[in-house]
Amino acid sequence: MHFPNRSDLVHPLAPLMEQLKKMPGIGNKSSQRLAYFLMSMSQVDVQKFADILAKTRQEIRYCEDCFNLCYEARCHICSDPRRRQDMICVVSDPQDLESIEQMGAYHGVYHVLGGLISPLDGMYPELLRCEELLERVNRSQIQEVIFAINPTIEGDTTMLYLKELLKGHQLTLTHLAYGLPMGSDIDYADSLTLEKAFQGRRLLSVQ
Amino acid sequence: MHFPNRSDLVHPLAPLMEQLKKMPGIGNKSSQRLAYFLMSMSQVDVQKFADILAKTRQEIRYCEDCFNLCYEARCHICSDPRRRQDMICVVSDPQDLESIEQMGAYHGVYHVLGGLISPLDGMYPELLRCEELLERVNRSQIQEVIFAINPTIEGDTTMLYLKELLKGHQLTLTHLAYGLPMGSDIDYADSLTLEKAFQGRRLLSVQ
Repeated sequence: MHFPNRSDLVHPLAPLMEQLKKMPGIGNKSSQRLAYFLMSMSQVDVQKFADILAKTRQEIRYCEDCFNLCYEARCHICSDPRRRQDMICVVSDPQDLESIEQMGAYHGVYHVLGGLISPLDGMYPELLRCEELLERVNRSQIQEVIFAINPTIEGDTTMLYLKELLKGHQLTLTHLAYGLPMGSDIDYADSLTLEKAFQGRRLLSVQ
Repeated sequence: MHFPNRSDLVHPLAPLMEQLKKMPGIGNKSSQRLAYFLMSMSQVDVQKFADILAKTRQEIRYCEDCFNLCYEARCHICSDPRRRQDMICVVSDPQDLESIEQMGAYHGVYHVLGGLISPLDGMYPELLRCEELLERVNRSQIQEVIFAINPTIEGDTTMLYLKELLKGHQLTLTHLAYGLPMGSDIDYADSLTLEKAFQGRRLLSVQ
């Protein structure tokens, strides 16, 4: 008797699952769950989803000033007259920019590097928008460059590189404060964070 | 001085993120991460993804015998001459069918109910393919109906309902065994599972 051979049965949702699996954090099981969910949606809704996906990717481009994602030549932040143009916050990617915008307390503009220097992963400074930052500093009246870069080896390397690159310009360079996250427990803080928190301690009062 | 108001800034990926968020397990943060990832893919690849998504939903339909998803009138299992047509495995949805196919040791056909009876959630028997199971049993030579249904309140209700529905037919009704999952620890087994494992104990040998 012949038993059905698994290999000659193709799952009807296999091509869609292959596409879903390309996305970060989506494995075999999740892609299956998502594929079945999508099939439970109406044909009209799925067509709308597919159209928005393709259209968004087609029309998206980089802001010619800060390299944030946008649909115009300049993004909604760079073209906002209420934003301070003399203050640039350097971030690695648009997600970080978005987190800072969510915070709502920064009113300058941004510069999106497109990653961090990491030679081991093939990320060299030439692949990032470092020269573009230098050009911006050269052509406009920038007072302060704030590095809002992850406190990691790659982040530190990138900051050191940019510090050298911007040498000789009349600029204040700053980076975000390192220390205890709000609501955290000192008991659970790692030694490096605690050390940074001690080094960066702030005056409370002089009695 | 006017500060930019968060509410008048629309995120360029907001429409795509809205679509992604409709999927199960995708919240605000995941939808953002996926949207940015999709924008990092080439336009050609994203277009391909969108096309496969829309095309899959357009062309998918239910097998007219077992209600599994397929592209033909009958699914690849029902139309496979090597599968036993006298044995029907009743499952709640195509995902469960897929898990059983992965196992590879079942060589009969299936019947996909499309859910489980759960009056509190508005899932009444009329919404499931119960009558269709009865019709199948009436029109073909079925020897055994195996219930591969989750051992939950909803699963038990559904099985009891189908047992009544199929009353008076020359059929063997079985359900999957309940007991300790392989590789598990009795120490961590819940009482109900242990009770089922005791009730269903199997003869090892008579010395």
